[in-house]
Order: sequence, then structure tokens, then C-alpha cells
Amino acid sequence: MNNRRPLFITLEGGEGSGKTTMMGRLAAFMQNHSIPYLITREPGGIEIAEKIRSIILDPEHTAMDARTEALLYAAARRQHLVEKVEPALRQGLTVLCDRFVDSSLVYQGYARGLGMEEVWSINQFAIDTRMPDLTLLFDIEPKIGLSRIAANAEREWNRLDMENLTFHEKVREGYLLVAERNPDRIRIVDASKTPAQVEREMNRHLEDAILKDF
Amino acid sequence: MNNRRPLFITLEGGEGSGKTTMMGRLAAFMQNHSIPYLITREPGGIEIAEKIRSIILDPEHTAMDARTEALLYAAARRQHLVEKVEPALRQGLTVLCDRFVDSSLVYQGYARGLGMEEVWSINQFAIDTRMPDLTLLFDIEPKIGLSRIAANAEREWNRLDMENLTFHEKVREGYLLVAERNPDRIRIVDASKTPAQVEREMNRHLEDAILKDF
Repeated sequence: MNNRRPLFITLEGGEGSGKTTMMGRLAAFMQNHSIPYLITREPGGIEIAEKIRSIILDPEHTAMDARTEALLYAAARRQHLVEKVEPALRQGLTVLCDRFVDSSLVYQGYARGLGMEEVWSINQFAIDTRMPDLTLLFDIEPKIGLSRIAANAEREWNRLDMENLTFHEKVREGYLLVAERNPDRIRIVDASKTPAQVEREMNRHLEDAILKDF
Repeated sequence: MNNRRPLFITLEGGEGSGKTTMMGRLAAFMQNHSIPYLITREPGGIEIAEKIRSIILDPEHTAMDARTEALLYAAARRQHLVEKVEPALRQGLTVLCDRFVDSSLVYQGYARGLGMEEVWSINQFAIDTRMPDLTLLFDIEPKIGLSRIAANAEREWNRLDMENLTFHEKVREGYLLVAERNPDRIRIVDASKTPAQVEREMNRHLEDAILKDF
């Protein structure tokens, strides 16, 4: 199975969708199938991308415009792609990336209202022709996802969570819209189930994708 | 004349085209006509834009990809536009900006080969609907422009200048192409003439533009 061409697999999903836990299980899947892999996420230790990200995250930059932010995310994405993802794929590693273009389309384009088409145009420039071979979308009702996070943080569901709920509902809506438009690439995994069930569903998609060899 | 709506005027041109000198004369024109104005150029002291620019210019960033660079220029442009140009226009100031989108189209899109259409797509995202009302293109044969710079630096024309010549010829070619596609907005000024002649030609375009009130 490790003679197959390396794949570029991305993980997407809202808050509390269990993406991080499933990344660990995904790594186990790769090991079990003797598929050499690399786990990454932007900015991924790439110096230029890290510096760009620190401008985005600097709490003093309250004047930052939403379009500036989207362009900076696209710039960090480009550099991470060129310096980390592409070299790994060339070395024959399957790349497992926590969030990629879909996050920008959904969070900035859809939920923040910049427009999916417009955010797609700058991301298309950033990724050139490199798209994920497979995207696993961990879908969960925001109310359940957010309450999971609250439970982990051992705190009560509060007023701010409720306000955020509308935003996260838009995020989910956006993800489902993108999935609908990319049925071949994006596989929806029901993230409301138990970890073991989610893992089984994820593995089914992986086996399907790898056996089909795209 | 200062009851007219404020204009957004950009200056473009290659090395040694005398753009900087003409910016001074342009300011004098505005004063003579009692038109309130602001002179600026990216990143223009805007903190976020300055930080973005410092990432671009850091000599240690030799691994920076050309597309990352183009996205960062677009991000700095966006923030400078939102924080400096737009507020000035709202205050009724005519804005005189040294370089704008055309520089990116020509230097990165055309001369560096990223593609004008592609560089335009990210710049369109950056500027949204804000385009210059008038762009003065100071056109000069690169050989003359570069030798002017060499003369100012009191040094001989060298091998590197010759190698650069091909690049600057592409820059000129790109500028003329953009001008051809935007005949209403871009006015070509023959920058090979004496400063007094260049100024006269520039002022003719300005009077024409201001009297027509776009």
C-alpha cells in the first residue's frame, strides 16, 4: 500500500468537533497501514508563516481589517504549503493537515461575510493548483460541540457561548455548503457519535479513498 | 475648485522616471489650486502595514515564495488603504499616492511572471471597489532611467545594471500594456524630457482631469 502516491488529506470542522482527537487516530491508521505520513497545521513552524501569523494574532492590532486578515492567512498558507507540504509530498509522505482552504472559505468567507467566492479567489492564488485529495469534515451541531468544550474546561455554559452560537451555526452551515459543492473531495463524518464510532466512519472513508487511489 | 469631490491620484513609473521629483511638483500644483491634499505611499506609517512590509523586506527571508510576497503586498495595501487613504478621502483631501495596484500588476504579475490576471485577482480583493481616479505613468526608456540613477550615485554603468536592464524593460512593457488597457484612467507622461517639460505635461493631464471632474 505504501507504493501508492502520497495523498494530501485535510481535516476540517467547527469547535468541539473532535478534530484533534481524530488526528491522533488518523496517525494510528497510517501506521497500521505502513503509510509514511506527516502531520501538520499552518503555520507549522515555518518561520515566515509564523511571523505572518503573529501579526494576525497580535492583540494590539485591533485596527486590522477583515480583508487584510484574509490576505495574511492566505500568505501564511502559501509559505507553509511551499516549505512544508509540497516537500513532504515530493518525499512520498502522505500529509495530514489540520485545517486548510475550507476553513478560510467558511470562517472568513461565509461566517464573517467577506464572501466565499472572493475568499476563494485569493486562496486559489495561494495554493495554485494544490488541492487536498481528501477532506474529512467533522460535522457536529454547534450546541453540542461548544458544550463539549465547556465540559472539558469544567465550566458552565454562559451568555457569551450563547452569543457565539449564532456564529458557529453559520460556520456549520458554511461547511455543509462547501461539502455539497465538493462531493468528491469532502467526506462528512458525523462527529456527534462516540470517538470509536467516529473513528470507524473516518476509517471507512480513508480506506475507500486509498483503495480507489483517486 | 476645492468644492469638487476629492480625487485619488496615483503615480507610477520605473526606476529613474523622476516620480519622486514630480510628486513635489504635484504638491505645488495642489497648493496653487487651493486643493487640500495628502501625500502618501505604502506602508505609509500604518503600523500593521509597516509590520507586513518588514516581513517582505527582511533579508533573512530568502525562502519567501513570490506568491507569498504578492499576498503580503496586497495585505499591506489593504491596511494602508483602509487606515489612511479612505479616511483622507472622507475628510475631503485629494490623495496623492506613490505607487498602487499597477506596480503589483507590472512588477510581480508581468516582470516577475506571476501573471497579471492572477495578481489582479488578489489586488481586487485588497482594494474592493477603490480604484484611482487618475494615474500618472512616468514613462522612460529603462536605459535612460537607470543611467540617471547611476549619474546621481556618481558611478559607472556596470555589468549588473546591464543584467537588470532586461527586467526593467519588461517593467516598462508591462506599464505600457496596463496603460493601453486603461486609457481613461492612466495618462502617460513622457519622462525623458526636462523636469519643466514633464511638469507641464503632468499639469495638463491634471487640469484636464480636474476640470472634467471625472
